[in-house]
Amino acid sequence: MLITSLENDKIKEYIKLKDRKHRKKTKMFIIEGMHLVLEAYKKGIIKELILEKDTVMPFNLPTIYVTNEIINKITNMESPSKVMALCNMIDNNNLVGNKFLLLDGIQDPGNLGTIIRSAVAFNIDTIVLSPDTVDLYNPKVIRATQGMIFHINIIVSDLRTIIDSLKSKEVPIYGTRVDYGINLNILKSKDKKRYALVIGNEGNGISENVMEKCDEFLYIETNEVVESLNAGVAASIILYELNK
Amino acid sequence: MLITSLENDKIKEYIKLKDRKHRKKTKMFIIEGMHLVLEAYKKGIIKELILEKDTVMPFNLPTIYVTNEIINKITNMESPSKVMALCNMIDNNNLVGNKFLLLDGIQDPGNLGTIIRSAVAFNIDTIVLSPDTVDLYNPKVIRATQGMIFHINIIVSDLRTIIDSLKSKEVPIYGTRVDYGINLNILKSKDKKRYALVIGNEGNGISENVMEKCDEFLYIETNEVVESLNAGVAASIILYELNK
Repeated sequence: MLITSLENDKIKEYIKLKDRKHRKKTKMFIIEGMHLVLEAYKKGIIKELILEKDTVMPFNLPTIYVTNEIINKITNMESPSKVMALCNMIDNNNLVGNKFLLLDGIQDPGNLGTIIRSAVAFNIDTIVLSPDTVDLYNPKVIRATQGMIFHINIIVSDLRTIIDSLKSKEVPIYGTRVDYGINLNILKSKDKKRYALVIGNEGNGISENVMEKCDEFLYIETNEVVESLNAGVAASIILYELNK
Repeated sequence: MLITSLENDKIKEYIKLKDRKHRKKTKMFIIEGMHLVLEAYKKGIIKELILEKDTVMPFNLPTIYVTNEIINKITNMESPSKVMALCNMIDNNNLVGNKFLLLDGIQDPGNLGTIIRSAVAFNIDTIVLSPDTVDLYNPKVIRATQGMIFHINIIVSDLRTIIDSLKSKEVPIYGTRVDYGINLNILKSKDKKRYALVIGNEGNGISENVMEKCDEFLYIETNEVVESLNAGVAASIILYELNK
């Protein structure tokens, strides 16, 4: 089917998905670009392909063809791709696995995406986002994950409740602070089969009431002129060490 | 002095500094926000403070006061600060120190800024940018460095020439590839007092003619579903290991 009108109901709906609230209400989101579409396809969450007319894709999926003008209205990018897809959110509340990453109020979409990408790289099982974290389905987040968002279990939940549940299973809870903590070398002597790592907000770190529930604080030694590392970098270095 | 007109010659000049070419021509750039201004002040490169009228700053520096309307024209930010400064570029071509980071065509301003921040954290002496790297004085780059741009020696140069010069001093040249290389553990057995690390472009990695000059390739082991890490993250993890 070729759609050419911006007044088409479906198209109006897809344009509205730029808005977080509408994504939340419909539990759907749009992804852009060949690479992301391929990763979403592997995961089986594509509801409909949206292709610029004359574009060919080798997937047996419901497909609509649209004009370049429509692509330009749906997109969140400066140079839009001819390949998009409407996807279903993965709705889930399962705290599965043994390795957990808890993110407490990360605000920058690029940072969240980068952290998700690193979490998959370093074998985290479940990521828990505090409710005030930037929207997981923000297009910039999805892009920065490089499609890895589709390869890891991610839930949104109050972190204190999650930590209590993990503690009841004797999972050690590692926090991070920029002002003090134990050198990462300590991890050599630890059993790293089960753990939870908490990473805080870019400006303010971990919130007080989550911090008081952490067992130990890890610290990355740096030149003293540097107050802190980028949150995505700090998270990734610790995940790298935990994965050794 | 209070300036209220957008037609003022100085203000027109400052607005033009949003353009890379004009920054390059004048060797000046604008920074925004208390934190960056403080770091630039420590470095002694501020030529003039630009403050929104009624803002007080404790520096003995040439200062102009401007209206909110003017701030909104000079700024590169969505929520501008009341504190800005005109700075002189640090013009320099010295390949100083023993620890070098060579960046081959990094394109994302956030990545470049993050890498500079990590390079200072992990005690790099000189960063060399290939000429096709994103502009160092791009406001997004400066912001992402968190002011660390003022605390490290950075030069722009052809990387092949630089590598030849480093090799003549017997500095080992480590490259990075996403497809193969030696596990970072190898660094434990190396003398890490002198080295150069080359990080490539986000999409294409290190260019062919630079790659052939590298002595060894380092590799960060990740879950196989992940093709690569974010360039800023990969650079930071290796710099962290080299600093151990």
